Amino acid sequence: MQEMITVAVDAMGGDNAPNEIIKGCIESINDDSNIKIYLVGNNIIINEQLTKYTYNKEQLEVVDAKETIDTCESPVMAIRRKKESSLVKGLNLVKEKKANAFVSAGSTGAILAGGTFIVGRIKGIERPALAPLIPHKKGVSLLIDCGANVDSKASYLVQYAKMGSIYFENVLGVKNPRVALINIGEEKSKGNSLVKEAYSLLENEDINFIGNIEAREIPEGKADILVCDAFVGNIILKYTEGFALTMLSMLKKHLLQNVRSKIGTLLLKPALKDFKKSFDYSEYGGAPLLGLEGLVVKTHGSSDSKAIKNTILQCKKFSDQKINQKIKENIKI
Amino acid sequence: MQEMITVAVDAMGGDNAPNEIIKGCIESINDDSNIKIYLVGNNIIINEQLTKYTYNKEQLEVVDAKETIDTCESPVMAIRRKKESSLVKGLNLVKEKKANAFVSAGSTGAILAGGTFIVGRIKGIERPALAPLIPHKKGVSLLIDCGANVDSKASYLVQYAKMGSIYFENVLGVKNPRVALINIGEEKSKGNSLVKEAYSLLENEDINFIGNIEAREIPEGKADILVCDAFVGNIILKYTEGFALTMLSMLKKHLLQNVRSKIGTLLLKPALKDFKKSFDYSEYGGAPLLGLEGLVVKTHGSSDSKAIKNTILQCKKFSDQKINQKIKENIKI
Repeated sequence: MQEMITVAVDAMGGDNAPNEIIKGCIESINDDSNIKIYLVGNNIIINEQLTKYTYNKEQLEVVDAKETIDTCESPVMAIRRKKESSLVKGLNLVKEKKANAFVSAGSTGAILAGGTFIVGRIKGIERPALAPLIPHKKGVSLLIDCGANVDSKASYLVQYAKMGSIYFENVLGVKNPRVALINIGEEKSKGNSLVKEAYSLLENEDINFIGNIEAREIPEGKADILVCDAFVGNIILKYTEGFALTMLSMLKKHLLQNVRSKIGTLLLKPALKDFKKSFDYSEYGGAPLLGLEGLVVKTHGSSDSKAIKNTILQCKKFSDQKINQKIKENIKI
Repeated sequence: MQEMITVAVDAMGGDNAPNEIIKGCIESINDDSNIKIYLVGNNIIINEQLTKYTYNKEQLEVVDAKETIDTCESPVMAIRRKKESSLVKGLNLVKEKKANAFVSAGSTGAILAGGTFIVGRIKGIERPALAPLIPHKKGVSLLIDCGANVDSKASYLVQYAKMGSIYFENVLGVKNPRVALINIGEEKSKGNSLVKEAYSLLENEDINFIGNIEAREIPEGKADILVCDAFVGNIILKYTEGFALTMLSMLKKHLLQNVRSKIGTLLLKPALKDFKKSFDYSEYGGAPLLGLEGLVVKTHGSSDSKAIKNTILQCKKFSDQKINQKIKENIKI
């Protein structure tokens, strides 16, 4: 028998809140009877939305939270001051072990700060790491860290590699995933002092470390887990997004330039849709913040119901596979 | 009257050497009578190729160099040991003021090391910087540094910003170019210790500093000069290349998936060619190594004759616009 999992969901975070968030929650519980949701947010708005749906009432509970944290607020200040926000209340449910996980499409900074301060780190973990998936030719890679640890130590990178391996193997189902260090050359001697030190440490760890990966090989899918400090991770993550969008808009401009190309484009519609879909990784869920005493997942700000549902199912897998227990066993204190 | 410029060209470096390199040289002198070329490399091979072309013999001289430096050799060792290589001999021509510039499509590491050790830095320049152009929606940006300075100081970044501004304004003809610091957020308080310190310094410089730029805004063309340390610069440069190639190959796969899409693709051929051309920036020439007592330019390893010709014309502009004199005037010692 499967175990029950309880997920607290921030109903107020993200561009499509609360409607798409609520819809995604309903879809997840209608899909899996072993999920219970705490929908955290303005109870008047949420309850009004809920009347539209048919679902098992025992699987969903509304937790009132009248404040919201804006993406432009200072994360640390917002977490301290807005005790009645959906984000702080949701994270407290994880801290108090009432929920196994917390999901939010809200401010990344506030989720990172709140996750660390409210939920707290696993003993022995130096820094929790935000690990989104980025698309490549044949699938996805886990990019770790994209969080707040911009002045990293080599020992952090080693922990990211280990946590990433455990997550990727158990949640994405890839046995013995390939771990690579993002660097500016393949040789061990390449790079800045941080990655040189990290390389020497990673060689001696019980993971499938395949060495350095150059940025040009990332889209080829040469590694499953891409290890880097958060400054580099953030740049790669955001550049991927910006570059893909710009390429698609440039392509569109060229395709619609005259009658001949317009007819061609019409014929190509299904193929182009398929192509665009290659970059839609909402089906994989959100980015986990690994290394905390509970699961916190940041989903994309523009998440729709499908992305929310898949993120909740991802939490279920995380819990079923006992990821945190495995992380604890693997981290030497 | 225009001044004469002498450019030493490495005939043996790059994937298409020596044929395309030689062809590019001939095209440049046939285009501009104020250019003189030293073609550096194996004189037997070069002279044999030269018989194919008609050109003004006074504008081209062959400098024999029987050794070549391979991309997999240790750059510093290769520079020291292979005194008879086309790279070392070409750089010596610049050092001895026999040539104004040196152009090579060979090993980036060896060009960087050779440029610094043989040609030498301008007095007051802490580190020379490699500054390639990357494409954006409306044109190109100068990405500085992509060289060897992976553990940078904030003061280096300030010099990159100043040298980049002078180069972009005078060679690309953009008045008062916008300089941005690559960072993981827009606010001054964001980023690692290096960029925070660099931000404070850049604010007080006499350049058009527009603040931080996030990676997702790079493809939008929000800035002309993108300042970063070489670790970040290398990652962005190589990721751009890898990502664009992967996207194009994925697109191709989708376009050729069935008869309908094949007909569509046929109709779209001119439009797709235009689209692909947006990423061909060989017309802008190569990446200058700024801050040296002479001009050294690294062109792409796959450079064809057009890229070589444009790089030589770029050297002419660099010289005509007296870039190095302007750099010297602008760098406080």
